[in-house]
Amino acid sequence: MMDLSRRTVLAGGAGLMAPLVADAQPRPALDPVLMAPGSAAQLAADGRRYPLFAAEVERARRQVETAIRAGVNVPVPKDSGGGYTHEEHKRNYRTIYNAGLLSRITGERRYAEHARELLLAYARLYPTLGRHPAGREELPGRLFWQTLNDSVWLVNSIQGYDAIRGQLTDADRRTIDEQVFRRMASFLSDETPQNFNLIHNHATWALAGVGMTGYALRDRLMVEKALQGLDRSGNAGFLRQLDLLFSPDGYYEEGPYYQRYALMPFVLLARAVDLNEPGRRIFERREGILLKAIRTAVQLSYNGYFFPLNDAIKDKGLDTEELHHAVAIAYARTRDPALLSIANRQQRTVLTGDGLAVAKDLNAGLARPFPFASMMLRDGPDGDRGGLAILRSGPSDADAVLVMKNTAQGQGHGHFDKLSLVFYDNGEEVLTDYGAARFLNVETKGGGGYLPENTSWAKQTVAHNTLVVDETSHFGADRAKADPAHPKPLAFVGAGATRIASARMRGAYEGVTFTRTLAMLAHPEFEHPLIVDLLKVSSSRPAQYDLPLHFAGHITDLGFKPTSNIAERPVLGRRAGYQHVWVDGRARPTPEQARVTWLLKNRFYSYRFLPAAPDAEMILGETGANDPSFNLRRQPLLIQRASGVRDAVFTSVLEPHGEYNGAAEYTLQPRSRIARLERLSQGDADVVIVETLGGRRLVLGLSDDPDPAKSHSVAALGRTLTWKGPWARFDQ
Amino acid sequence: MMDLSRRTVLAGGAGLMAPLVADAQPRPALDPVLMAPGSAAQLAADGRRYPLFAAEVERARRQVETAIRAGVNVPVPKDSGGGYTHEEHKRNYRTIYNAGLLSRITGERRYAEHARELLLAYARLYPTLGRHPAGREELPGRLFWQTLNDSVWLVNSIQGYDAIRGQLTDADRRTIDEQVFRRMASFLSDETPQNFNLIHNHATWALAGVGMTGYALRDRLMVEKALQGLDRSGNAGFLRQLDLLFSPDGYYEEGPYYQRYALMPFVLLARAVDLNEPGRRIFERREGILLKAIRTAVQLSYNGYFFPLNDAIKDKGLDTEELHHAVAIAYARTRDPALLSIANRQQRTVLTGDGLAVAKDLNAGLARPFPFASMMLRDGPDGDRGGLAILRSGPSDADAVLVMKNTAQGQGHGHFDKLSLVFYDNGEEVLTDYGAARFLNVETKGGGGYLPENTSWAKQTVAHNTLVVDETSHFGADRAKADPAHPKPLAFVGAGATRIASARMRGAYEGVTFTRTLAMLAHPEFEHPLIVDLLKVSSSRPAQYDLPLHFAGHITDLGFKPTSNIAERPVLGRRAGYQHVWVDGRARPTPEQARVTWLLKNRFYSYRFLPAAPDAEMILGETGANDPSFNLRRQPLLIQRASGVRDAVFTSVLEPHGEYNGAAEYTLQPRSRIARLERLSQGDADVVIVETLGGRRLVLGLSDDPDPAKSHSVAALGRTLTWKGPWARFDQ
Repeated sequence: MMDLSRRTVLAGGAGLMAPLVADAQPRPALDPVLMAPGSAAQLAADGRRYPLFAAEVERARRQVETAIRAGVNVPVPKDSGGGYTHEEHKRNYRTIYNAGLLSRITGERRYAEHARELLLAYARLYPTLGRHPAGREELPGRLFWQTLNDSVWLVNSIQGYDAIRGQLTDADRRTIDEQVFRRMASFLSDETPQNFNLIHNHATWALAGVGMTGYALRDRLMVEKALQGLDRSGNAGFLRQLDLLFSPDGYYEEGPYYQRYALMPFVLLARAVDLNEPGRRIFERREGILLKAIRTAVQLSYNGYFFPLNDAIKDKGLDTEELHHAVAIAYARTRDPALLSIANRQQRTVLTGDGLAVAKDLNAGLARPFPFASMMLRDGPDGDRGGLAILRSGPSDADAVLVMKNTAQGQGHGHFDKLSLVFYDNGEEVLTDYGAARFLNVETKGGGGYLPENTSWAKQTVAHNTLVVDETSHFGADRAKADPAHPKPLAFVGAGATRIASARMRGAYEGVTFTRTLAMLAHPEFEHPLIVDLLKVSSSRPAQYDLPLHFAGHITDLGFKPTSNIAERPVLGRRAGYQHVWVDGRARPTPEQARVTWLLKNRFYSYRFLPAAPDAEMILGETGANDPSFNLRRQPLLIQRASGVRDAVFTSVLEPHGEYNGAAEYTLQPRSRIARLERLSQGDADVVIVETLGGRRLVLGLSDDPDPAKSHSVAALGRTLTWKGPWARFDQ
Repeated sequence: MMDLSRRTVLAGGAGLMAPLVADAQPRPALDPVLMAPGSAAQLAADGRRYPLFAAEVERARRQVETAIRAGVNVPVPKDSGGGYTHEEHKRNYRTIYNAGLLSRITGERRYAEHARELLLAYARLYPTLGRHPAGREELPGRLFWQTLNDSVWLVNSIQGYDAIRGQLTDADRRTIDEQVFRRMASFLSDETPQNFNLIHNHATWALAGVGMTGYALRDRLMVEKALQGLDRSGNAGFLRQLDLLFSPDGYYEEGPYYQRYALMPFVLLARAVDLNEPGRRIFERREGILLKAIRTAVQLSYNGYFFPLNDAIKDKGLDTEELHHAVAIAYARTRDPALLSIANRQQRTVLTGDGLAVAKDLNAGLARPFPFASMMLRDGPDGDRGGLAILRSGPSDADAVLVMKNTAQGQGHGHFDKLSLVFYDNGEEVLTDYGAARFLNVETKGGGGYLPENTSWAKQTVAHNTLVVDETSHFGADRAKADPAHPKPLAFVGAGATRIASARMRGAYEGVTFTRTLAMLAHPEFEHPLIVDLLKVSSSRPAQYDLPLHFAGHITDLGFKPTSNIAERPVLGRRAGYQHVWVDGRARPTPEQARVTWLLKNRFYSYRFLPAAPDAEMILGETGANDPSFNLRRQPLLIQRASGVRDAVFTSVLEPHGEYNGAAEYTLQPRSRIARLERLSQGDADVVIVETLGGRRLVLGLSDDPDPAKSHSVAALGRTLTWKGPWARFDQ
């Protein structure tokens, strides 16, 4: 077996800042396997030996063969996302990438030939292009409606080109170098500094394309701009982004959806740096931040899909191109067998030496389960700007996961939902986050971009499971106001029978502070963990407090009888997302009545709550009002409302229970096992009591103060319960 | 290997009307394997050898072991469907069944012992019982709220008891015989003639229980009553049911959901008859009607789920207990390898010699694909009461299927939807049938029974994809008026590039006749077949005609701009189901505009139509109005409306197209490829023209007259198109 580790392949490789290899019949710069001379036959043999890689070769072959049959088609750019020319140019970069790598793997000349023809067509077209006709954003591209897609084209195509560049005539190479790649690299760097010098994922894509092009073309200056910014000062560029865009825990500030997206250019460029300038030890920078970010990305998922925080398309998960690359690159550098189980789940890899290593070791049975676990992921470059709390009841796809969003704003794609939560169980998203209002690449839906309802609904606070004050969103939905702020995490306990995450938010509304504690509680009388939610708010003046609960499922039982709008359905409000909510009914349930039970897949969920203030109201609604273009999904929601008070406490418990089996015709425990919910307070300490039908009591003491030494007391159950630190259990 | 065929096992078995075997230490009467002396050890060895059977043994073992640990619990009946005592008595019959069969298969005495203890507990309880306290129907049971469930208890328990009966002391056997089974058989036959003598599935369950009990207890008279009715005249009972409840094509008159349900007692009793009285040749009766009915049940499914016609719970499909039994019994008698592929899909079988045969042959790789195909299934005992037309584009789970409901009413569970349609594609139900408004066994939803909305919505015509006149349902939703009527099937073509089903309905409304032709059309410019729908109605007086289209998916594009009810949502009507529809918008689109496109899973569907009359209206709505208990699923629908006319023609084409892939970020062809839809008529002949964006024309001539010799002419495309018979293609 050929050794694929970079040490062997790159023995004698260039050191830090050493001049790049000269340019006569250049060998590929972007893949160690392809860079090793005479390795094609071996690679071809290996490629056939390991099913995962062989399948990938076959998939690429089918794609390229189809493209060859279709012929070279490089249309003049015209359409926006999802449109004809958009999709053709996307198809072309895939073809250039696949054909280039396939030509190396299989040794078949025709693949290189097709990539060459395509690139020569681009060499004719590209110099004629100006601003894209469908460009609407500040940064229109040339091939695509936005610069970002041009960058993606470059990242993909340069890899394919690099693989065949050495096989071309000098004339062809010069033509493609100059008319395509140098021009495009120039457009995406010097000509668009307002993008390239940003600390933002759009810039990451640009500098990855430019940097890899620099390595492939042996252009030292181009590489330096990519790594250090246009002025090569280090104030922008790849290295600076590595320091600023990820927290010390590998959390990307825009959230999981964009973490995935940004990872690809990060890891591809890092790999190119590592191969061509191993002396930079890029994968060791910031204690291995990139490898950490890859593992964190995997942790940010449930049942294969990413937590849909901020602007997020819910289809995205571990089985995406970005994660195929990230897993292969990380595995080749760490040999962490847990990554193989992710590759196995993907049933995909990439056409590089890294992908081959994954396929080989997976085939050898080396995979181990990925250690999904509870964790607190700090946000911000220094880890001091809030964070994302993840509580897991176990590592499997069917276990319960509670996500609490205590992060900072996360730039322009951030939603206004401090201290919000998402809850998963039984493989399903039970308490939901809407994600983005967008139909990715569906041209008939606003050109495939973010829809107006992304702003009017998806980003607004009421679209999330967190507190809304006076029917306005956090920070008035103003990003400039939101950017400086972040929650203060309090306690975090990730293991044991009592798992806890808590945080406090000040400044989302003037004069308002709210503190939320979420607990995942195991108890022998309950088959599944209970979720206790304690949200306390105080304001300098009386206000209206709403706590929405977006749930998935079909209501099977209400503990109270609402006044229903059965024959005409009004809208809940006029702005801040409230205009999109139909009101089905309203009620003022007593504490005994305050319960909603629903069925999702084959499990029931009972949500029981205590009225947050005297005369507190429960509103039952559905999304879809003021939506003449049918841009929103229609989903149920509950809103607890407390009006005209300065202080309010929202106390609730979510109880998963029972089983519905329609095929085998049985239903187990469709009713809640909880008889009563109670809360007692003293100062900043609370005791929440969950009493079961069998008369047992789950008793949870909670304090807002994370100090483990501080003592708290609450009179309850006929005695004084005293504990130290943020929580204690006094079950009876 | 032991030979499992009944010939060997039953050599010398009783002939027609011969006295049953005497009762000293009786051998089991209900299973050939169990009936063969000394076979237990062999059975145990075989059971381990074949994975499907071994898994079934293990599953039963787990169930019974859990039951043994829980102890004997035979509560006094109290609750309705889904409640505690209901579920306990269900669990008990499963335990008696499994424990009895397991004791034979494994030879382990403890299983027989647990079944004995349970049955002795029933022997103490049962004689004390009267009418069930939660009984609401005409026919309350004793153990359960309805007699039907008592029958199901008997069908299951008698099989388990039969397996252990020979091992009991005379005293125990006498106690259980007399206090449980004879009393229960008497209750379900002589004491409830109003059920037992019916020609209906509730009666089938009763007579199967009574008949099998008769064989197990060697009670000739009990068997005769089950087979011939209480007076043994043959006017009721099993044999009469076989003649009346299935059509000559094996279609059960209540529809697929109840076909599944009714099959189980039919095939179990037939098997008992076959084993104990092979001379009756029960499986050959009516040209093998029972075996035909089993194959037909499989044909009545898509992607594993039954067509949800009439009252139907959508969770039900091929992987249900009833089909496990049916497939095993049919396979043991026919060795049809296509049935093995169904067993493979189920990954289940039954604990009998038949199940063992399935497991063995599946293990030997004998399975062949089930031949799913287009077919016209006639309805009615003589096949002359309409029928169900099924058009399939191919045999796989992803192929398209068009179901046209041209059947008779189908008794009390029938819906009022003559000539309605359901369309499947890409593994999904695209044009939907609501099925039943019922949460099976969910006690908090109306006791788990049919909800009020089953009558007010699910059964009404507007809840289906067919014509509604003057906002009233077919036959005024009066079963007595509906029972005598049925549609007249016209043409049926199940193969080729033009597949057609058509039928005519008279009498659903006074003075109204409507004729509908559905066509599934293949054409080289379309990747998937097009569905053309031509519905022509004429009435003796002006009327309002509505054609609802219930679809699954999210609207991605409208060809017209509706007037939207964005800030307050009115209800469509006051009765006949219209009170359950919210109105989102209304429009009067021109023929050029009349198109709605939606996305379902990863495929787009464009529905294009021609206004059915001058000023025809399109209504966009959603279900869920007048539903204070949240009993209805919220689903979108379209309604085409033509008002104040005597004649109207609804012409439409449904076009599946393109692909959405959110994970890999591409979208193919989100727009329709159809430029224009046109219809030209002359007499009872029509030409429907579908013109593509590329200028090609799919031209379909249709006639209402199925006579293949009759000639039709329509002037179209600048010439006269002439053809013979119900259809012709004139593509250009």
